[in-house]
Amino acid sequence: MSARCITLLTDFGTRDGYVAAMKGVITDLCHETIIQDASHDIAPGDVTGAAFALRRYWRIYPRETMHIVVVDPGVGSARRALAVRADDRFLVGPDNGVLSLALRDAESWKAVAITNREMILPNPSSTFHGRDVFAPAAARLACGRALSTFGDPVEDIVQLNAPKPRAELNYVEGEVVYIDRFGNLVTNMPAATLPPKANVTLDGKAIGLVRSTYAEVKPGEAVAVINSDMVLEIGVRDGNAASILAVAQGTKVRAGN
Amino acid sequence: MSARCITLLTDFGTRDGYVAAMKGVITDLCHETIIQDASHDIAPGDVTGAAFALRRYWRIYPRETMHIVVVDPGVGSARRALAVRADDRFLVGPDNGVLSLALRDAESWKAVAITNREMILPNPSSTFHGRDVFAPAAARLACGRALSTFGDPVEDIVQLNAPKPRAELNYVEGEVVYIDRFGNLVTNMPAATLPPKANVTLDGKAIGLVRSTYAEVKPGEAVAVINSDMVLEIGVRDGNAASILAVAQGTKVRAGN
Amino acid sequence: MSARCITLLTDFGTRDGYVAAMKGVITDLCHETIIQDASHDIAPGDVTGAAFALRRYWRIYPRETMHIVVVDPGVGSARRALAVRADDRFLVGPDNGVLSLALRDAESWKAVAITNREMILPNPSSTFHGRDVFAPAAARLACGRALSTFGDPVEDIVQLNAPKPRAELNYVEGEVVYIDRFGNLVTNMPAATLPPKANVTLDGKAIGLVRSTYAEVKPGEAVAVINSDMVLEIGVRDGNAASILAVAQGTKVRAGN
Repeated sequence: MSARCITLLTDFGTRDGYVAAMKGVITDLCHETIIQDASHDIAPGDVTGAAFALRRYWRIYPRETMHIVVVDPGVGSARRALAVRADDRFLVGPDNGVLSLALRDAESWKAVAITNREMILPNPSSTFHGRDVFAPAAARLACGRALSTFGDPVEDIVQLNAPKPRAELNYVEGEVVYIDRFGNLVTNMPAATLPPKANVTLDGKAIGLVRSTYAEVKPGEAVAVINSDMVLEIGVRDGNAASILAVAQGTKVRAGN
Repeated sequence: MSARCITLLTDFGTRDGYVAAMKGVITDLCHETIIQDASHDIAPGDVTGAAFALRRYWRIYPRETMHIVVVDPGVGSARRALAVRADDRFLVGPDNGVLSLALRDAESWKAVAITNREMILPNPSSTFHGRDVFAPAAARLACGRALSTFGDPVEDIVQLNAPKPRAELNYVEGEVVYIDRFGNLVTNMPAATLPPKANVTLDGKAIGLVRSTYAEVKPGEAVAVINSDMVLEIGVRDGNAASILAVAQGTKVRAGN
Repeated sequence: MSARCITLLTDFGTRDGYVAAMKGVITDLCHETIIQDASHDIAPGDVTGAAFALRRYWRIYPRETMHIVVVDPGVGSARRALAVRADDRFLVGPDNGVLSLALRDAESWKAVAITNREMILPNPSSTFHGRDVFAPAAARLACGRALSTFGDPVEDIVQLNAPKPRAELNYVEGEVVYIDRFGNLVTNMPAATLPPKANVTLDGKAIGLVRSTYAEVKPGEAVAVINSDMVLEIGVRDGNAASILAVAQGTKVRAGN
């Protein structure tokens, strides 16, 4: 069998050594794992941003991959720590919604609350569950311990309050729900819901027809495309749409005839 | 035997390719290693920040782990290059204090100055010892070369000038020595030195009793806790204490009755 | 045989999950690879910066290493996707010049345009060829598929328009072509072209003789050195030359008598 892969997604940055402490725990408990950094640059406490990022990669990885997510502003409170088996992959993180978008895309999943103290470090701190709870639990799960031994099943995991698009006969109305590093404006409007030859407006201003690629417009021009997650996205060719169009999350988008 | 783990901590950033050059040297010289990034986001020349980060993770890793630290503003000067065996792990880096906090936590250690030119790259540059000295020496040490073959023993390694707390019968006085990515104010006051039910003041202003967790105060409120390194820390729940409280490194902290 | 090493260089940042999606594809298609991050902090669309970074590390890695570079502002346009065998290593990336500086240092290379759709993901997006084209093609190349099966040979790859230095009998004139994270000013003037005991000027202002190391001048002073790539570089000891000397890319440099 090849080495088990564990990915890490946090808002810790790397400069304080917190991430390295988590990697040390995993390496110590489960020698045969390969640790891959997903990101440590999630904005501090940005549960929604982490949920969007996780959704983009978790199911691309092979079966048996372990995805750890620690964006955990409620650390030390009563929020639960989750271990989830979903579509033959594992997800570990706090029960604050950060796993919820990924699980909406899962065909099936089963979650438990991590309460068995044998699975975590002794004398866990109240401020750093990444090192003391999530890393050791994930390492033990990756090394073959059964999910059911970590704690009791959880059905009602916390959901992110994601705005839903409104689809009518001739048009769909949604909004900008995510802005990526390039300034591209990701909407909550799946390609499958758009009417054919849809004209797109952003905050009432015309963007034009949905194009196949950025390269169909001139540099500096705004363009609507179906992005790599099959969702409507508005960008500016060779530019940062969020700053050029002065748009923030929540801005209304309409696609229709 | 499982693959040997090598961690990297630098102030190089990644965008210039310097870190990748170090990884290339290690991969070339010691195929069976697993390289893990600790961080490359240490502020340029911030020896103290790197020393704090290293202290947080070096001993969590399993025995035989190799930790490379290159924050080296004196590169090309007469400062020594160190290879150290400490508590069955290895540390490699410049002799500028960056390893000194970790070694204070070691039960025992033995250091040598890397002077054997067979252990480094031929014709080393005077500006990039990360690639030409530290990476090759660490790779060879990780591949099993004996520490004593790298150079002569060093007893008097350079120490960081860390401010010490002052403990009296009823109180302890210390200061903020580190500010992490979240803006949390880490002090130099170990939990074990605090009197019971200590009241904490920061620059003379009341913070309150030492709490078990951030979640015991309301969002936006300041709170004193024992952090995950068992040291007194002051934070703001769901906020950045350093900016909200307008506090810099060196600010006085008092805990007592 | 030891595991094949694949490096990744992109301008994606990590927080959006795009890089993790690429890693997932590679891990899924080629289990036995070790993925190393070169950098994801290239400025958005900075093809030249990525080309300089790649040049710094690609040949240090052992033979058979696979280097993936995705800085691809023209994604979705007619620009070609390249797979290259160069000096027994592999390079994969868009045909926009990003590979061209590395290939100038190669003793020999052979490139093909990736056109065989069996080598990429089905239904590739028009906006994310990192995940849909470059990652799968590289993984398959790393797993042993022959270069010639990816597409037809390409001879005329796109070249970066790099400014050339002008060498006269007693002096060389060049310019600042790259500014690194520390603010060091990298020129396009190879050490081998400089006259002996050259005096350096930057935008007409005297910097002094070429030194062996930064440590030869006082902290805060400007200094000219031969850098670790054997090229003339101007820095400020313990400081950021680009901001202290207020210099941008393209500033003229002269070294002579």
